[in-house]
Amino acid sequence: MTDIQRQYQDVRQYTEHLCEPLQLEDYVPQPVIFASPPKWHLAHTTWFFEAFVLEPNLSNYKPFHKDFSFLFNSYYNAAGDRIFRADRGNITRPGVQEVYDYRAYVDKAMESLLKNDDYKALITLGLNHEQQHQELLITDLKHTLSGNPIFPVYNEQFSIINAINESSGKVEISEGVYDIGYQGEDFHYDNEKGVHKTYLHRCKLDNYLVTNADYLEFIKDGGYQTSNLWLDEGWAWVNENNIKAPLYWHKVDGVWQNYTLQGLKVVEPKQMLAHISLYEAAAFAEWQDRRLPTEFEWEVSADQLDWGKRWEWTNSAYLPYPGFKTAEGALGEYNGKFMINQMVLRGASQATSPGHSRKTYRNFFHASSRWQVFGIRLADKH
Amino acid sequence: MTDIQRQYQDVRQYTEHLCEPLQLEDYVPQPVIFASPPKWHLAHTTWFFEAFVLEPNLSNYKPFHKDFSFLFNSYYNAAGDRIFRADRGNITRPGVQEVYDYRAYVDKAMESLLKNDDYKALITLGLNHEQQHQELLITDLKHTLSGNPIFPVYNEQFSIINAINESSGKVEISEGVYDIGYQGEDFHYDNEKGVHKTYLHRCKLDNYLVTNADYLEFIKDGGYQTSNLWLDEGWAWVNENNIKAPLYWHKVDGVWQNYTLQGLKVVEPKQMLAHISLYEAAAFAEWQDRRLPTEFEWEVSADQLDWGKRWEWTNSAYLPYPGFKTAEGALGEYNGKFMINQMVLRGASQATSPGHSRKTYRNFFHASSRWQVFGIRLADKH
Amino acid sequence: MTDIQRQYQDVRQYTEHLCEPLQLEDYVPQPVIFASPPKWHLAHTTWFFEAFVLEPNLSNYKPFHKDFSFLFNSYYNAAGDRIFRADRGNITRPGVQEVYDYRAYVDKAMESLLKNDDYKALITLGLNHEQQHQELLITDLKHTLSGNPIFPVYNEQFSIINAINESSGKVEISEGVYDIGYQGEDFHYDNEKGVHKTYLHRCKLDNYLVTNADYLEFIKDGGYQTSNLWLDEGWAWVNENNIKAPLYWHKVDGVWQNYTLQGLKVVEPKQMLAHISLYEAAAFAEWQDRRLPTEFEWEVSADQLDWGKRWEWTNSAYLPYPGFKTAEGALGEYNGKFMINQMVLRGASQATSPGHSRKTYRNFFHASSRWQVFGIRLADKH
Amino acid sequence: MTDIQRQYQDVRQYTEHLCEPLQLEDYVPQPVIFASPPKWHLAHTTWFFEAFVLEPNLSNYKPFHKDFSFLFNSYYNAAGDRIFRADRGNITRPGVQEVYDYRAYVDKAMESLLKNDDYKALITLGLNHEQQHQELLITDLKHTLSGNPIFPVYNEQFSIINAINESSGKVEISEGVYDIGYQGEDFHYDNEKGVHKTYLHRCKLDNYLVTNADYLEFIKDGGYQTSNLWLDEGWAWVNENNIKAPLYWHKVDGVWQNYTLQGLKVVEPKQMLAHISLYEAAAFAEWQDRRLPTEFEWEVSADQLDWGKRWEWTNSAYLPYPGFKTAEGALGEYNGKFMINQMVLRGASQATSPGHSRKTYRNFFHASSRWQVFGIRLADKH
Repeated sequence: MTDIQRQYQDVRQYTEHLCEPLQLEDYVPQPVIFASPPKWHLAHTTWFFEAFVLEPNLSNYKPFHKDFSFLFNSYYNAAGDRIFRADRGNITRPGVQEVYDYRAYVDKAMESLLKNDDYKALITLGLNHEQQHQELLITDLKHTLSGNPIFPVYNEQFSIINAINESSGKVEISEGVYDIGYQGEDFHYDNEKGVHKTYLHRCKLDNYLVTNADYLEFIKDGGYQTSNLWLDEGWAWVNENNIKAPLYWHKVDGVWQNYTLQGLKVVEPKQMLAHISLYEAAAFAEWQDRRLPTEFEWEVSADQLDWGKRWEWTNSAYLPYPGFKTAEGALGEYNGKFMINQMVLRGASQATSPGHSRKTYRNFFHASSRWQVFGIRLADKH
Repeated sequence: MTDIQRQYQDVRQYTEHLCEPLQLEDYVPQPVIFASPPKWHLAHTTWFFEAFVLEPNLSNYKPFHKDFSFLFNSYYNAAGDRIFRADRGNITRPGVQEVYDYRAYVDKAMESLLKNDDYKALITLGLNHEQQHQELLITDLKHTLSGNPIFPVYNEQFSIINAINESSGKVEISEGVYDIGYQGEDFHYDNEKGVHKTYLHRCKLDNYLVTNADYLEFIKDGGYQTSNLWLDEGWAWVNENNIKAPLYWHKVDGVWQNYTLQGLKVVEPKQMLAHISLYEAAAFAEWQDRRLPTEFEWEVSADQLDWGKRWEWTNSAYLPYPGFKTAEGALGEYNGKFMINQMVLRGASQATSPGHSRKTYRNFFHASSRWQVFGIRLADKH
Repeated sequence: MTDIQRQYQDVRQYTEHLCEPLQLEDYVPQPVIFASPPKWHLAHTTWFFEAFVLEPNLSNYKPFHKDFSFLFNSYYNAAGDRIFRADRGNITRPGVQEVYDYRAYVDKAMESLLKNDDYKALITLGLNHEQQHQELLITDLKHTLSGNPIFPVYNEQFSIINAINESSGKVEISEGVYDIGYQGEDFHYDNEKGVHKTYLHRCKLDNYLVTNADYLEFIKDGGYQTSNLWLDEGWAWVNENNIKAPLYWHKVDGVWQNYTLQGLKVVEPKQMLAHISLYEAAAFAEWQDRRLPTEFEWEVSADQLDWGKRWEWTNSAYLPYPGFKTAEGALGEYNGKFMINQMVLRGASQATSPGHSRKTYRNFFHASSRWQVFGIRLADKH
Repeated sequence: MTDIQRQYQDVRQYTEHLCEPLQLEDYVPQPVIFASPPKWHLAHTTWFFEAFVLEPNLSNYKPFHKDFSFLFNSYYNAAGDRIFRADRGNITRPGVQEVYDYRAYVDKAMESLLKNDDYKALITLGLNHEQQHQELLITDLKHTLSGNPIFPVYNEQFSIINAINESSGKVEISEGVYDIGYQGEDFHYDNEKGVHKTYLHRCKLDNYLVTNADYLEFIKDGGYQTSNLWLDEGWAWVNENNIKAPLYWHKVDGVWQNYTLQGLKVVEPKQMLAHISLYEAAAFAEWQDRRLPTEFEWEVSADQLDWGKRWEWTNSAYLPYPGFKTAEGALGEYNGKFMINQMVLRGASQATSPGHSRKTYRNFFHASSRWQVFGIRLADKH
């Protein structure tokens, strides 16, 4: 078995492994527009191989079902009509079993292409794409289950937030010109490309993340009620949505508990804080008279930092590097078109698939997003 | 087996019979707020017996699950906290099998009460309640499946719209004072009570309903584009929702087709029109220079009319009869509180459960509703 | 001066008289879609004479301004394109002076037609239309001024709510057949026509209206927090809009005050209640275990009732009388197309123009409306 | 007369000068939440001097009116309760004359403080604040008048878009480290502070802006219908709002015209393009296979560029410079809290007040904004 064959098998199986604890009903709903059902993730990642690998390259390939391209495309405008995103949870047919059959059918068809080195780069992109959806699958699922008033358990043994800091102190970067961007031969996204120089001023980043205990102090001190700690949009967001704590937190009989994939649990003070928006991260930083690092400070410090349990909000907007170029065709829609009104996160979380990050990796979300495993690392003000 | 025992068995089994063609995924979604998932209908009708029959009357009754009262109450404010209605489709646990177990558990517990004549009236109310939900179950399901771009088949042999007129001519009522309201000893709702006199002027009602062929003429004649045929709210509704045909109709390659429980089918000209709003019914009547009958004209004519395939829009608002009284307690919420901004429909449809209507039955919906099997009977203008 | 000449002069002057206390800025805004600016009322009532009286009947008539028909039409679809209703408050040109010039220009042009008896009926309709807008002008203006946090005074000497009951006891109607609808030769609307018989059961109506003192008891007793007093839609309305009192009421330092055209004033206990919705009227009636009368009971009792200070909610939906016919052309849009989802009010209010009501007059509004001078008369339950 | 006295007089008079062509009605409405009425701008800029200069520093100062602080505060949370922003257009009292009286009252009170050098910095901030509102006053007004179907003329002699390019060619910057940020002693905002180094790669910027003729080519080539030219949010924005041209453009009888302060005029091909969003700017750049410059490239090139007629969209997000600090108290809310989800514009427009810009000036708006005089300068791709 070659490397790519093994990787293909591992990644594809891992998606299904994540679904093992599910009841069949769990595969279906989409309570919010941004979180897709497991059934859709299983099918969409498979459609990616069908549409971008098999159909263009396997001459006798016959699609599994003529309507699946329509049903399971996500946002690739160039690849045909899409089903309206908010309807993903209302499409009951094809059923779950048929989607698993679709996966098996595509996996079988992939076998011959997996033997051919010409497709290795394209297949690797497909596998990285699937790994991204693995993280979404588990975080989307957490969001869906969290809305059930009986707080269902996904898996008694599994959590995506149970990490504590194992380092302390600060990491310092001296002033000067640094190289930014991916340098190497392995897989990486187009948005990491364009190695370029950037000038950094001296800075100090914590070698640990904000904990629940830290954040409980912020709440206790009236952080959510103090307008001048917040960005203007953040303050509007807090008030319109009546936000009083991180996502999934509930005060029950005076005690803060949080919904986890193991059910409702008491908030653990030593745990790294999770499920907060950039607005909350920025307000917390302001409360401590500190700041969020930029993505460039983070990348330059990365080799000295202890990271990998949380995606960490930076105060950098998601914008192209000098020399950024989008790929031709539908795959060109992958990253560039999202470069507006999103903020960069660096690191990796406990929900990130094994091997699916690196120090140059640029994750990005809207400032109000909370359902991913987002945390806070602080830097000293200049 | 007594009558009530047999009725109980028949009605309860019929609900499950309607679900036989379903895939498990079909039990889950709620794409629109007004249409509940099959799983919810199965559980809610069972909860009704648990909450209103078993708990107050069976001393040693132990509820099946402590959270079900919360999850499966619908609108009975007096019976405790309700889950927000729009979330019914996102609650994956309890799963479908657990809901069937719930049904069996309650049916078992009901056995002793079914032997006691004291509960007959209450149980009969529960069965009529379940029959109402049977009609909703099948019409809600049709609505959910209709949103799937591959137009799934529920059952190749089953339709709720395949009726044609078997009568012709008109029925005439002479001017005078008539009695209105239920007179008898059998089951009926509180909103039919209050037998009272009403004065009717001479009127003539068609002994047949409007057909698809009739309505196609209206469409062809520009009915949906002619403002002065429409009620003001109806005209706004047409324009805001870009309405161009009855619900479920699609023009495919120049041919009108409609989604049915047998899949997508060509619109059958001789069929009775179905799935139209009161706004459309009123505009169609105006286009023919005729009118919708009042509910009183309908009731007085009923014995001479051929009816039972469509719920028929009347031009009567749903309001209390003189002497109307609500029942005490939670059951009192059944009908009276909806007596505003709804219009009365008379008759029964092909989706109505066997035996679940009578000439005094007052069905009621908002003027914009279309997902029930609503049709049109016209009367001459005075 | 003939009667019609005098009426024309009186009505037209009364509109301008109502505007005397205004600052020029008050003529402009439209804070809510249902309440139009004074400038618009002044122009629209004038446009009515221009479009429906002058243009069809005065051969050499030249419209004042080519765009005014577009700007000041309201809802007469047949009379040409309308400006979107929500924009009325944002149209600063023509200015107020130009609108007064428009009035003078049209009044001048009307002089010759006022001498011709052929136009008397049409002109009388135009004057009644203008009287309706006089009531709206003052109630719309009250709504606009009420949103100003400094609570401006319109006129220290003028109020539309300062009435107290001058009668007591009840009026009883015996069971039987009664005539309903306008019988006579004077002006009346199409919706009052169609004299017809109706059957009434015995009923008793109060000869006085609910007072602020009565309603304060309802508030104190938790009326707004007791779900089972309310219609289902009413309960949703209360909760979505956080309703806790009649419109314009503010609790200031523990004391109920209300915004009036004389500024902010303490709520007067003996005053007839005003500015409540049908939802509130129905809940209040339920709280007293009484009910709202029907419009037919009201009309039959009218000669014995003390009425004229409030429009009084009835529990009758606004629907056509038997034999109702709409007029031809644009004027036919006057009433019939609103006959859905509105409730009938009978009587007249302190804001109603002198002479602009009668016992057969059918006013109608949505159940949630409160900005008109709406009050409550109760009837005994049957 | 000292410099500051003359500046105070000039700036304050210029605001009133801008209002000279107005009818009184024009001062009132606020059709969209982002555009305030002239009356409000006149009062708010005055309130700034009252609240931040007079009240803290003039011991015997008596505010003009106790409610004005409430009515005319904008977004300074620390300075007390604000009137809800969307209501500014509905507040008819105080009227326009009273607002002019307020201005005169405050100007009179300022006289003594203008003689004292201690307040020079604070007063200069107030004047720059007023200049910002001058640009908003005229662009807000244009937006309000543009919604009137009769397209009113503000001033036959005045336009904010009638500029053509007077330079050509490109400006090139060589790779290296550059200083960014304001260096000097004159007035500047806190967001320009924090002089710091940045590393720029070699780049070439056009020495001219995109013209209407250029943009007409983009429209003709189907730019608004070509999804892959657009940012994802931009594509959604185009489709949700049915955007087909820059703001204020109307196709009349096949000819593109645009609303200007001189009324409706044919689009002038040689004019610099105006009133486009960042989404449109980015799509246009992509269509030409070019890009928008960063704000740093712009600032470093500024001395060689011909600029000053348009605010120019850059592809830089509005974020703090290293070492950025907010001022203490309410004035600290001036800039920092808006540093999220906004893009930087550099330059100045024809609507910018004389002397109110410099090469380090950072203007910022949401990517969808169009009502300011925004244009496009392109750079070569790297």
